Order: sequence, then C-alpha cells, then structure tokens
Amino acid sequence: MDNAQPTPASKPSAEAPGTPPAPAAGKQSKSEQTRSLILETALRLFQERGYDKTTMRAIATEAGVSVGNAYYYFESKEHLIQGFYDRVTREHIETARSRLARRTEFASRLQVTLEAWLDVAEPFHGFAVQFFRNAADPDSPLSPFSAESYPARQTVVDLYREVLAGSAMKLDAEMSEILPELLWLHQMGIVLFWVYDRTPNSQKTRDFVKRTTPMVARVITLSRYKLIRPLVRDADKLIRDFIVPENIGKAED
Amino acid sequence: MDNAQPTPASKPSAEAPGTPPAPAAGKQSKSEQTRSLILETALRLFQERGYDKTTMRAIATEAGVSVGNAYYYFESKEHLIQGFYDRVTREHIETARSRLARRTEFASRLQVTLEAWLDVAEPFHGFAVQFFRNAADPDSPLSPFSAESYPARQTVVDLYREVLAGSAMKLDAEMSEILPELLWLHQMGIVLFWVYDRTPNSQKTRDFVKRTTPMVARVITLSRYKLIRPLVRDADKLIRDFIVPENIGKAED
Repeated sequence: MDNAQPTPASKPSAEAPGTPPAPAAGKQSKSEQTRSLILETALRLFQERGYDKTTMRAIATEAGVSVGNAYYYFESKEHLIQGFYDRVTREHIETARSRLARRTEFASRLQVTLEAWLDVAEPFHGFAVQFFRNAADPDSPLSPFSAESYPARQTVVDLYREVLAGSAMKLDAEMSEILPELLWLHQMGIVLFWVYDRTPNSQKTRDFVKRTTPMVARVITLSRYKLIRPLVRDADKLIRDFIVPENIGKAED
Repeated sequence: MDNAQPTPASKPSAEAPGTPPAPAAGKQSKSEQTRSLILETALRLFQERGYDKTTMRAIATEAGVSVGNAYYYFESKEHLIQGFYDRVTREHIETARSRLARRTEFASRLQVTLEAWLDVAEPFHGFAVQFFRNAADPDSPLSPFSAESYPARQTVVDLYREVLAGSAMKLDAEMSEILPELLWLHQMGIVLFWVYDRTPNSQKTRDFVKRTTPMVARVITLSRYKLIRPLVRDADKLIRDFIVPENIGKAED
C-alpha cells in the first residue's frame, strides 16, 4: 500500500491557535507529544553518551523544553527508564496480540510472542548493554525484579496467561496459575541473551528462541505427569521465595 | 590440631643472603609472594576505587613495586582479574575436595561444593558487583563463558565430575558426560544470585543453595526416565550451540 498521509477531513478544524489539540484516536495530544519527545531524546542521549553521563538538563536542552518541563513529565532519570520500559511493554503486547490471533499451537504462540518483543526492542539494542548494567541489580528500581516494576511485570505475566489460554494445550487450574510467571521469567532469560547478542538483527537470539520454545512446550506437557509435577511446584515456590519475593504478598498468609 | 609453624628442619639452610628462597611446600617463593602482593593490592583498590578507575601504576605504587615489575607479573588489568579467578577457583577446589571426602549422597555433595565456593568468595563480595559489570558480557575475556576462561571453566567442570562420580547416584555414560557442564552452569546461576545478595554472610544465597540442591538431585534422578532424557539431551545441545560455543571444537565434526 502506498497511502498518502491521511487528512483529518472528518474532524472539525476549529482549533484556536495556542490551544493544545484534544487527544484523538491515533493521534497524540500535545502533552503526549512532549512526553514522547523527551523520552526519545533521553534514549538517544543515553545511547550516545551513556546513562550515567546524561543529565536531565542535557535532555531538556536537546529536546528544546525547559528543565522544569522535563521534570514535570519525568521526576528523574530512573523514571525515564521506567517510561522506556512501559513503552516497550505496551508495544510488545499490541504486536504480540495481533500475531497471536488464529494461532492455537502453544509453541508457535510462545515463539511469536518472544519474536514480537525482539522486533519492538531491536531499535534500542545499542542502548541495552549500557542500560543492563544499571538494571541487573535486583535492588535497583530499574530491575525487572524490583517492587517498582511489579505493575509492568504483571502486564507481561497477563500476556503469557493469554498465550496459554488461547492455545490448544490442556492445562489444569494449578498449572494455569503457575505457568504465566515462569514464562515471564523465561522471557527475562531471552532478554539477557539478547542484550549481549551482536549478530545483525539479533539473529542468534532469534535462533535461540526457535530452539527453546518447543523445549518449553515439552516441559509443560510433561508437567501433567505425577513424576514432574512436584518439581514444577517447587520451582514456582522457589521463584516466589527468592526471585520475585514481593509476590508473596499475593498469597494468603 | 594445634601445630606450630613447621620448621624446615630436614632442608639444608645454606641459603646465601640475597638469593630468593626456594619454593617449599606450604611456603610461597619470593616471586609467588610478589605476585600475591600485587594481586591482593589490586583487589583492594578495585574494591575501594572501582575497577575502571584503578590504574596499573596505582596498583604498583600501592604494592611498593615498580610499574615494570607489576606488568611482569600481570600483563594488564584483565590478567589481574584472571589471576583473581584462578585463585578463587584453586581455593574452591581445595576446600570442596576436603568437604566431599566421605560424603556419598549427591545432594549433600553438591551443597558442600557450592557452599565451599561461597566461603572462598565471601571476602571479595564487595568487589563482586563492580566486577560483574565487566564480566557479564559474554564477549569479554573476563566472562566465565569466554574462550579465554575455558581452562578455568574446565577445572570446575572436572570438580563437578568428581562430585557426581563420588556419589551413590547411578549414572549412565551419556549423563556422566553431559551433567558436569550443566552443574557448572548451575553454579554460575548461584554466583549471579550471590553477586546481588546483600544479606550478612550471603545468608540468602546459602538458603537458595539449600533449596535448589535437592531439586537438582531430583531432576538428575528423573533424567533416567525415557520421558525426560530427550529434554536433558536438548538442553545440553542448546548450551553447546548457544552458551559455550567454543566447546563445539571438542565434538567430532
């Protein structure tokens, strides 16, 4: 398709000069545009100069906004990273959902979900190593394992709930409860692999995903057996007690 | 036992003044002492100032040796890290071996081996986070997954071969071949957990080890079943193809 830029013919053009345009579907409000501009500028500077060396002042100057304005949208550099997270997560979920439609085989659903993440994150690959140095520490609010990241993490855990629910694979209630979080953890493993992947378009990570998804499917199928079930339970409990401990709050105790 | 420092009574004491003492069991040669001194000083400075900010010149000055002498023992800062690795590995293997004696239960053998690592590494915990930032990149020669780390890695893989061989657990030839490397990878996971553990004496990591070792033992026991075997094979092949690729050279192809 070779469409020209669509003209907003159906919308009233009675916008007074100086008035910010009202938010419209498919179009960002002025406020959202400024927020986006600051975030994009920050990500570019982080990539060029490194996260530690980039100040909020430099970001504001480069984006052409006042320092006060920059702080209005993002309280700190860490909030910028959180904004980056949120954006990648939102785009990942949208992209994955569109690719999940009409697929029923679990391994294939898992594969397209992970590939959607790789496609969405690829433009930020250069920044990822730099960023990972700050995010690898589980005590950092930037860590995907931190309490601060709980809402973003839950959004992705919910995506994996959909990946499972829409598949032809039969699962009992216990596994349906346990698996989404384990699949999120699997994604974190893929992300770690990707951070250090230097092949063009992260081809090595893509091959890694193709290799691991059928294995994950097989482990899940095996979890129905009495022999394996206790191990899956222990793994789940281990993760709750040691890796994402703030989830303990969800359990009744 | 409360032995006093043993005197080298059985050795000739005809050492000329100015001649470096000959290496003796339990006693370091002058050259080994200097090497140790430089390494200790470097580790202290890395911990105090950070790895990136510590120069070879500063290490030499602080150790009271000439810069040329420092470079004679360690070609670069990276070689110092390699020296640190080698030292921890050597002490780990010694400590683990002494604790493995007369233990036959596999889970217990695995546990004492990992605890030996924690005991040996604990004095360097403060330095570990700083260091990990440089070692996490698999393309860095400092990474435990790098080609440069192959000899050190093989020493530890061999230790895990002993952990398995000395246990009461029955293993066939294929699993005996595959498992030592998987157990080394498990140790790397424990190390990663430890790097970010802030509890006194790394108590959380110690609890984590206590929880995971019986699980690992159970997975290995299950690997005898036809149902599980293909998964263990796939996991092994996955690691060889993606995680420690230089090991491919060992296979016939």
